[in-house]
Amino acid sequence: MTDINNASAVPSLPTMKIYDWYDGPYPARVRIALAEKGLLSEVEFIPVNLWKGEHKKPEFLAINYSGTLPVLALNDGTLIAECTAITQYLDVLDDNPVLTGVTPVEKGVIHMMTKRAEIEFLDAVSVYFHHATAGLGPEVELYQNAEWGKKLREKAIRGMHYFDGVLRSQPYIAGNTFSMADIAVTGGMIFSALVSLSVPDECRALKAWYANIQRRPSYQQWQALVEAGRPVFNP
Amino acid sequence: MTDINNASAVPSLPTMKIYDWYDGPYPARVRIALAEKGLLSEVEFIPVNLWKGEHKKPEFLAINYSGTLPVLALNDGTLIAECTAITQYLDVLDDNPVLTGVTPVEKGVIHMMTKRAEIEFLDAVSVYFHHATAGLGPEVELYQNAEWGKKLREKAIRGMHYFDGVLRSQPYIAGNTFSMADIAVTGGMIFSALVSLSVPDECRALKAWYANIQRRPSYQQWQALVEAGRPVFNP
Repeated sequence: MTDINNASAVPSLPTMKIYDWYDGPYPARVRIALAEKGLLSEVEFIPVNLWKGEHKKPEFLAINYSGTLPVLALNDGTLIAECTAITQYLDVLDDNPVLTGVTPVEKGVIHMMTKRAEIEFLDAVSVYFHHATAGLGPEVELYQNAEWGKKLREKAIRGMHYFDGVLRSQPYIAGNTFSMADIAVTGGMIFSALVSLSVPDECRALKAWYANIQRRPSYQQWQALVEAGRPVFNP
Repeated sequence: MTDINNASAVPSLPTMKIYDWYDGPYPARVRIALAEKGLLSEVEFIPVNLWKGEHKKPEFLAINYSGTLPVLALNDGTLIAECTAITQYLDVLDDNPVLTGVTPVEKGVIHMMTKRAEIEFLDAVSVYFHHATAGLGPEVELYQNAEWGKKLREKAIRGMHYFDGVLRSQPYIAGNTFSMADIAVTGGMIFSALVSLSVPDECRALKAWYANIQRRPSYQQWQALVEAGRPVFNP
């Protein structure tokens, strides 16, 4: 991994490992958060192959009961799963939160909008992918409910319209400042692209916001990591 | 509402209203958090009748796009939905967090376990209720997917076993201290009781933990509020 950040402001960091998969939309949320915090080079990434279902195997379920990526492992044995929780941890490490808010209201609103981004958009796209498409393949998708998956596809598109509305009156998802909530919606945009779920043309504010996000160094560092981390497939 | 708390340590609080329903499991999470923080008497509760589907009407969707309770409304117009976000806000109001952690690791682990309590237990019970039982009735439950509801019932029971395992090695859900994560699992226990989903006998650590939770003043204050808030039904 190239040294594309500057962590000089953070003394004596704990050793951090992250179990993830190089181009996963949820892993992207934490990798972008790491880039925003200048912590990318502090982390060792341990690949867990989603397409082989390694995240559903007993060895990994012992690390994260929910069988999802990413998971942060600290050198004292502490394991932190869930993107919001990992981001919350990373953001306060240096006592200088830039993603999760400073005032009580900022903290509350950012957590609300992050959760809303999950339930109304990112998680809905994920359910669509895992239930109403081939998902990760028959070896991994042991139970599918196609009707539910299609229903959640509709929900995700409604979610795009909702966030478009939000962005017509403010520059970022949780207000005037970039935050963890923007990263969560970015996860939804990344997942939508992977499953060919197009953003409706009329969602102009959402598209303009995303163009802006994609110009951020953190997004570009994430893209570079994806390219660098892409496994060489042997057909 | 009786004055069952002491907010003298919190000067010049903003006026707070909470849209909720007196015995809802998610509203319970915020009411218990308020009691833990000594803030119950600072809040005006505005009833939104779940059984009449008032939470799915356009007027309420303008308050919370997701159509869920509870929602916190501040006097400057700020609206905060989602239990975790509301609890995060309330807990740092007095700069003395007792529910969401002080150190970065505490914050991360508490947010992880709270989310896990939702996806593996509380939200799973909710999906079971809304999809595989009569739920809030045919006027409100406009779409049901019974197969998905039954699947999530199984997930909730697995979740009980998981949290039982957690509680065999530590006194509280996120470690050695009561936190927001305990309140989230409590929401799951409250919802399970409402839908007659029994905790398996072998989950002895979970049952012992819950007996302990039910002895806390915050739980008892919540119970008293439920009794005091129960509407008089005119048959």
